[in-house]
Amino acid sequence: MNLTEKTLKRNTVYEGRILRLNVDEVQLPDGAKSEREYIKHSGGAAVLLVKDGKVLLVRQYRYAYGKVLYEIPAGKLNAGEDAAVAAARELEEETGYRAELSHALDIFPTPGYTNEVIRIYFADKFEYKGSNPDDGEFLECEFIELEKVLQMIECGLICDAKTVAAVYKYCLGRK
Amino acid sequence: MNLTEKTLKRNTVYEGRILRLNVDEVQLPDGAKSEREYIKHSGGAAVLLVKDGKVLLVRQYRYAYGKVLYEIPAGKLNAGEDAAVAAARELEEETGYRAELSHALDIFPTPGYTNEVIRIYFADKFEYKGSNPDDGEFLECEFIELEKVLQMIECGLICDAKTVAAVYKYCLGRK
Repeated sequence: MNLTEKTLKRNTVYEGRILRLNVDEVQLPDGAKSEREYIKHSGGAAVLLVKDGKVLLVRQYRYAYGKVLYEIPAGKLNAGEDAAVAAARELEEETGYRAELSHALDIFPTPGYTNEVIRIYFADKFEYKGSNPDDGEFLECEFIELEKVLQMIECGLICDAKTVAAVYKYCLGRK
Repeated sequence: MNLTEKTLKRNTVYEGRILRLNVDEVQLPDGAKSEREYIKHSGGAAVLLVKDGKVLLVRQYRYAYGKVLYEIPAGKLNAGEDAAVAAARELEEETGYRAELSHALDIFPTPGYTNEVIRIYFADKFEYKGSNPDDGEFLECEFIELEKVLQMIECGLICDAKTVAAVYKYCLGRK
């Protein structure tokens, strides 16, 4: 079966600082017309850094959830920026660590309504240089034992998708 | 450090079929004002069903990425619907399997701009009843060997976050 949907008309309904919302008219595989609402996003990059068996996490208030979340260091790509460069930049800005990175995996966070790709890297070699968060970015760094991180995922204290995917992949690779 | 951001003014800029976009005025921890753009979403539910060592996946065109993705069966919660009920409903609609579910984990797909929670379940007992997709939903089901699914994640053929998280958790639990 041909599953492809054809774009009939592109329509941007909001253009903001971090995202653009499109509501396109599309033609479905059976010829019927419909609409697709989705976010156009520049992409994200994230880094799993494990030091002496401890995972480097950042605690950050996430307005959409109304609470502080634990996540691996991450950020949004600047226009045209390479994901590996963005990952290294965000890691250093948020945590003060400069690292050599290797690509671990990419995730599509929620394909029903965003085109974001989050590229996840492992930090292979790293050293502390001192942090320098962006203006308006308030966060705290914390090293947490890997076993404890797995328990926090298990009991729902860590839910961030990129963090779960990165930590799980790391654990599967070790075994 | 207090990381909390305070809502000064709520502002809905778009209300669509599957999502609502808010752009709120907020006060940052240092007192400065800023804006937060985020999607209000009713939540998602997904099911990992493994039968004779094979994972049940659906192939579906995802307009935001412009391609067909492999994902575990999933869908959006109806207003006020329990996530486990939604998961069982979506599983049966999309694949024809009726199942008893146990909760595996929740993920927050991309906390910077959505409040969606995706609740992921494992199918414990199941039987085939015949599928009945929603109007306008075009998809194909496929059972794929777990080892092959892991390879597809490894080489980037499967990137969907809920699928990666569910499969990895399942594999870690087995070991």
